[in-house]
Amino acid sequence: MILILYAHPQAARSTANRALLDAVQGLPGVTLHPLYDVYPDFSIDVAAEQARVAAAHTIVWQHPTYWYGAPALLTLWLEKVLTRGWAYGAGGHALHGKRVLWVTTTGNLADQLERGELPGLTLDDFSPPLKFTARYCGMDWLAPFVVHRAHRLSTDELAQRAADYRDRLQALLAP
Amino acid sequence: MILILYAHPQAARSTANRALLDAVQGLPGVTLHPLYDVYPDFSIDVAAEQARVAAAHTIVWQHPTYWYGAPALLTLWLEKVLTRGWAYGAGGHALHGKRVLWVTTTGNLADQLERGELPGLTLDDFSPPLKFTARYCGMDWLAPFVVHRAHRLSTDELAQRAADYRDRLQALLAP
Repeated sequence: MILILYAHPQAARSTANRALLDAVQGLPGVTLHPLYDVYPDFSIDVAAEQARVAAAHTIVWQHPTYWYGAPALLTLWLEKVLTRGWAYGAGGHALHGKRVLWVTTTGNLADQLERGELPGLTLDDFSPPLKFTARYCGMDWLAPFVVHRAHRLSTDELAQRAADYRDRLQALLAP
Repeated sequence: MILILYAHPQAARSTANRALLDAVQGLPGVTLHPLYDVYPDFSIDVAAEQARVAAAHTIVWQHPTYWYGAPALLTLWLEKVLTRGWAYGAGGHALHGKRVLWVTTTGNLADQLERGELPGLTLDDFSPPLKFTARYCGMDWLAPFVVHRAHRLSTDELAQRAADYRDRLQALLAP
């Protein structure tokens, strides 16, 4: 089972993330878990989250890139759910061998990178917090799925990226 | 005025951050703003925060490094307080020319870096989100003040680092 942990602070205003989700939501074996809908008050049910994660072989962290990183609720999810003795430390093996797919949309970041406003950096430089968190917990970090300039894509371009996302998840569902 | 935005999810259990704060809290011109005390429900008063920031010439973002980055409430603070038209975009000049000092304590990160478990990386690789957020808003990013292995420092070592912090802020208070 693939568990999509979706963190969009303004989900109703999202076009790109919505298109991506619409393309994969019907897939058997894919479960969407929209964190901002479930926890509008930032009060995360740790036991329920751990049970959800335990049941999945692949975790997707999907979010728009805000201020060069993950939104606050996903950050809180990491802090609360990845407990010592469960996710890491003595006896903390719950996540070992599970795969993580980082799915993110960016707005101006790609432009800033291209214009050289962030000298020497690539998008990879903004993934370490998530990447190393995953690795610290023994998870397998997959090549990220990134949609740059999400707010400026044409309908066709967005549909293509959504189809790509569907293909990607289908490949991850294959036995 | 120096405004310390302090974000510690478990402030009561902090030794290192507490020692740092004790060393600077009495300084005239330094205001401590403990985000987790003020907003335990993650419900940030944006107007009040913007007024506080506007009154300061130097902002300190002080937090323990959790999962290779800033805790959730500081992440939320960036999302909520740094609004378009105020912090960036047309008319968004409120932060231009203000200085930012990043103050962070780390636990195992320094060990992981030293043991080569994070190949090719240094602490600088974990500052981009905060650093580029500051720069995007026209702020002046100062050399960070970092206390590594905070939980294993001796009382004397910690006292020395606290004194260093005090010196650092005093220098920033000088006209």
